[in-house]
Amino acid sequence: MQPQSIESRRNARVQAFCRLRDSAAERKRAGRFVLEGLRLCADCAETGVPLAAAFVTEAARKKGGARMDALLAAANEVFYISEPVAERLSDTVTTQGVFAEAFLPAARPFAPQPGERYLALEAVQNPQNLGAAARTAEALGLSGLLLFSGCDRFSPKALRASMGSLLRLPVFETDALPAALKAASKTLPVFAAVPDRDAPRVQTVDFSGGAVVVVGNEANGVSEVVRALASPVTVPMAGRAESLNAAAAAAILMWEMVRV
Amino acid sequence: MQPQSIESRRNARVQAFCRLRDSAAERKRAGRFVLEGLRLCADCAETGVPLAAAFVTEAARKKGGARMDALLAAANEVFYISEPVAERLSDTVTTQGVFAEAFLPAARPFAPQPGERYLALEAVQNPQNLGAAARTAEALGLSGLLLFSGCDRFSPKALRASMGSLLRLPVFETDALPAALKAASKTLPVFAAVPDRDAPRVQTVDFSGGAVVVVGNEANGVSEVVRALASPVTVPMAGRAESLNAAAAAAILMWEMVRV
Repeated sequence: MQPQSIESRRNARVQAFCRLRDSAAERKRAGRFVLEGLRLCADCAETGVPLAAAFVTEAARKKGGARMDALLAAANEVFYISEPVAERLSDTVTTQGVFAEAFLPAARPFAPQPGERYLALEAVQNPQNLGAAARTAEALGLSGLLLFSGCDRFSPKALRASMGSLLRLPVFETDALPAALKAASKTLPVFAAVPDRDAPRVQTVDFSGGAVVVVGNEANGVSEVVRALASPVTVPMAGRAESLNAAAAAAILMWEMVRV
Repeated sequence: MQPQSIESRRNARVQAFCRLRDSAAERKRAGRFVLEGLRLCADCAETGVPLAAAFVTEAARKKGGARMDALLAAANEVFYISEPVAERLSDTVTTQGVFAEAFLPAARPFAPQPGERYLALEAVQNPQNLGAAARTAEALGLSGLLLFSGCDRFSPKALRASMGSLLRLPVFETDALPAALKAASKTLPVFAAVPDRDAPRVQTVDFSGGAVVVVGNEANGVSEVVRALASPVTVPMAGRAESLNAAAAAAILMWEMVRV
């Protein structure tokens, strides 16, 4: 299909993009999500996630390169956009002028194998924390991520903070948390990170057979239902801060899961 | 001194506040920095940093509480501000309407003692990373932070991300990095975090006598001059991500420094 031009910020495709950018409910309804930035768009194309559309400014297209070629080749539709349209689509302060609309991948069944290591995030609200945890999970070689209760995997901020790890890692989402943890516990020990001083310290836990470790909401920690299904584990703190940031706690927990 | 009212966004004190908020150079020139949010302002008052001024909306003042009392008592000048002024002063999406202007603390001489553990950050650009690393440092009980080469400690974003840890922790700043590391190395071993696969892995390093560990710039890592003065240490990565986020790497390194 020939590329089409979009000059107006009120264009219907522009408005649809912005709705997908701003609303998790709209992403779910439409079965699509959006990406900004050449690297993230090209990463997405490379992972095989089908791209519904690419939106690029003339300046970005002229800069070109292998990533731009890959992006334009992977997209079902290509739109050449004006600078004002790029500013409208952008979620950042200075935009590169490169955007894509992608189809949400099909849900995967969570079927953990012995020896695998998963980080589970329950109701983590801050997309920076979600993205940072995913990036660390990929860097440390975890088997995947489990997301529960509104962790918004396709939030543009989370995708950007993850540097694409949220697209590359195996990610499993569920709204039926107790069932998923119960099923997982037949194969792997399940732990919940808690701030209790008398919980077993993470460095004393044997992760050699694999594990699922749940990190909870920034303000409230893991829920009671998760606590009831999991063994407690804690990152001991010597200092005065009330608690570690969720992404920092997750980094230390994941490090201990893979530390040999 | 009686509280004064500020109704206009063009008021000179409002403009001065915004300059301090937005510019590290202006903070240095004026010897002041700014804070937003009741908790951070009250934390600052509690740590004994002198407050030049407090700016509060009527709604915030009416909500009151012990922290508000502490803030108003600690400030040399108190300004009652209108909601439009609060929006002008704010660096956040939804403001609480509570702000303070504080005097920059005097520089401390860095005189590390045997057994102490310091994280040093070299040219870390992202205030979120700086704030997150400070929060983790305080939670894990590190002895303090060393900041080099433009790590902007009094950036409002860094202060907020640190949840006040940047005000409570001993923080040392220097522009003479080689001299500071050379002096430190007489008392403590100095390490530089590097992504090299053949560098000693962090879990094999003996931190029992204390240490200084340097984490570098997000894009370029530690500089050559630091590498030359320090022993390399690495967080081994199994995965595909190019590298850990600076705050996540710092969390794992600090954890290993205090892990027993």
